Amino acid sequence: MKKEVLIEFGIRVKELRIERNLSQEQLAEKSGLHRTYIGMIERAEKNITLVNIQKIANAFDLSIKKLFND
Amino acid sequence: MKKEVLIEFGIRVKELRIERNLSQEQLAEKSGLHRTYIGMIERAEKNITLVNIQKIANAFDLSIKKLFND
Repeated sequence: MKKEVLIEFGIRVKELRIERNLSQEQLAEKSGLHRTYIGMIERAEKNITLVNIQKIANAFDLSIKKLFND
Repeated sequence: MKKEVLIEFGIRVKELRIERNLSQEQLAEKSGLHRTYIGMIERAEKNITLVNIQKIANAFDLSIKKLFND
């Protein structure tokens, strides 16, 4: 059973990526992560670590705080 | 070399725990995590995952957003 927090995070990453007209490939390149990893994050198939959350936040030029809804 | 984001998160968790007069043991019990794991998080020795970040946020009765500074 996929964890709610991972589903919400995946939706948020996809939302931010599309807002910025980035492909998964481009977000992967900007964040220094692998394209398949980005896909897995968006599908909530990976329990992402804090260091990688920071890399994704940096790629979007956002604080980690801004990656999460209230 | 310890990652800056892990050091900041560890400091934040310890700060919130002490504010609430909780021991590591008590925070571990409330979050469903192991006491030694809480210690390692506070010392930035663990690259915590999002699911465990959620457990710690729940233990403090905070949203994940509130665990991070701007």
